[in-house]
Amino acid sequence: MISSTVLFYGNYVLCLCLGLLCVVFVSYWNIEWRGGFAWDASFLQFNWHPVLMVTGLVVLYGNAAILYRIPFTWSQRKQHWKLVHAALLLSSLILSILGLCAVFDFHTGYHIPNLYSLHSWVGIFTVVLFTAQWLLGLVGFLSPCSPLGFRKLLKPVHAWMGMAIFILSLASCLSVTRNADPPPITTNYIAYSSHPAEALFANFLGVLIVAFGLVVLGILSNQRWKRPEPGEESSRVSILLSYLYNTWTSIYYL
Amino acid sequence: MISSTVLFYGNYVLCLCLGLLCVVFVSYWNIEWRGGFAWDASFLQFNWHPVLMVTGLVVLYGNAAILYRIPFTWSQRKQHWKLVHAALLLSSLILSILGLCAVFDFHTGYHIPNLYSLHSWVGIFTVVLFTAQWLLGLVGFLSPCSPLGFRKLLKPVHAWMGMAIFILSLASCLSVTRNADPPPITTNYIAYSSHPAEALFANFLGVLIVAFGLVVLGILSNQRWKRPEPGEESSRVSILLSYLYNTWTSIYYL
Repeated sequence: MISSTVLFYGNYVLCLCLGLLCVVFVSYWNIEWRGGFAWDASFLQFNWHPVLMVTGLVVLYGNAAILYRIPFTWSQRKQHWKLVHAALLLSSLILSILGLCAVFDFHTGYHIPNLYSLHSWVGIFTVVLFTAQWLLGLVGFLSPCSPLGFRKLLKPVHAWMGMAIFILSLASCLSVTRNADPPPITTNYIAYSSHPAEALFANFLGVLIVAFGLVVLGILSNQRWKRPEPGEESSRVSILLSYLYNTWTSIYYL
Repeated sequence: MISSTVLFYGNYVLCLCLGLLCVVFVSYWNIEWRGGFAWDASFLQFNWHPVLMVTGLVVLYGNAAILYRIPFTWSQRKQHWKLVHAALLLSSLILSILGLCAVFDFHTGYHIPNLYSLHSWVGIFTVVLFTAQWLLGLVGFLSPCSPLGFRKLLKPVHAWMGMAIFILSLASCLSVTRNADPPPITTNYIAYSSHPAEALFANFLGVLIVAFGLVVLGILSNQRWKRPEPGEESSRVSILLSYLYNTWTSIYYL
C-alpha cells in the first residue's frame, strides 16, 4: 500500500513537471519565434490560441481529472474537492473559449474560413462536449436537489466522458498541422527537414504533450489509485482472502 | 449483467465497423487521389505507408487489445486466446515494419532526410516500444518456463504498456501533417480551406481514427468488461453485499 502511494506521488510529480514544461514551451515558442502576443485580430492574437488551449484544455484539464486520485484528499470531505475539481475545470473551459475567440477573431481579420481542418473539427467538438460535460456535472453532482439515482447513473458516464474529452484535446493538439493557419513553421519541407531550431522546439513541445497525456491517462487507468468509496474496504478484504485460492489456479489461466 | 454484455457487443460491433471504415478510407484515399501503390521507392511506395500503419498499428492492434474483453471467449481456455492475441499483434507488427520500410525506401529514393518530424519521432518510438512489448509478452506469457511471479508482475505493466502504445499510435496518425513528405494534400492553405474533396475525405479519415480510438479505449477502461479471473466471483458477491451499506452512505460522499 505504501509503495503504491509512493508510486502515485512519483507519477503525480512527473505530471506536474510535464504540465509546467508544456506551458513554458508553448509560451516560449510563441514569444521567441512568433513575435509574442496581442489582442488585435493579428498574427499576434492567433499566438494566444496554442498557449490558451495547451494551458487550459490539456494541462489544467489533465490536473483536474486526476484530482480525486491524490491520496492526500481521501481523508477529507469529497464535497470540498468536488468544488476544487469544478473550479479547475471552469478555469480550463474559460481559457479554452478565450483560445477559440483568439483564432476566430484572427480568421475574421484575415478573411480565412473557419472550421475547415481536422484540427478545427476535433477541437470545436471537444470544447462543445466539455461545456456540456461541465454543465451536466454541475447539475448532477453539485446541485443539492440532484437525486441519488441520477448521480449513480451519471458517475461512470461522467468519468468516461471526462477521459474521452482529454483524449480528444490531445488529438486536437497533435492534429494541429493539418490546418494551414499562417504563420506556418516553414513552407518548405527541406527547411523543416534540416531541423531549424523552431521545428525542433515545436517537436519537443509535441513530445511533452504526448508524455503529459500518457502520465495522466496512466494515473486514471490505475484502479489502485481510485479514491476509496464507502464499502470498498470489505471488498478489498475479500479480494485478499481469495488471493490464496488464486495462487494455485492462476498458473492455468495466465 | 445481460445489459452489460449487450452494451459490450454494441460497442464491439461499432469498433469493428469503424476499424473496417478506417482501412477502406485510407486505401481509397491513396487509390483515388495519390495514384495507387507500387514498391519502387517512388511516391507510389510511400502510399503504402499510411495504409499499412493504419491497418496494422491502429485497426489490427486495437482489435487485438480488446480480444480478452469479448464475453464469448471467457468460457474457453485462455491459452488459446493468448495465441490469437499474439498472432494478431504479430500481424500488426509486421504490417507496421513494412509500413516503415515503405517510407524509408521512399526517403532514400528522393534524398529526403529521415526522422525529422514529430510524426516520425512518435511513430518510430511507438514501433520500437511495440516490438519490445511483443517480445516481452512472448517470453513472459507464452513461454512455458516463465515463472508465475514474473507473470503476475508483468501483467499490469503489459496491459498499461499496451494501452500506451495504442495511444502513441493514434498520436502518430494525428501528428502526420507536421512532416512535409510529398505529395502533400495541397501546398496552398486557401485551396485546403476551400474544402477540396481530398481534404474533406482525409479529415473524415482522421475523425474515423479518433472515433475508433475512443471506442477501443472506452472498452479497455470499462472494468465490468474485463475477463473474470479465478476468485473474481467471490469478490463480486462481497461488492454486491456491501451495496446495501453504500446506498445510505453514498449520498454523503457523492
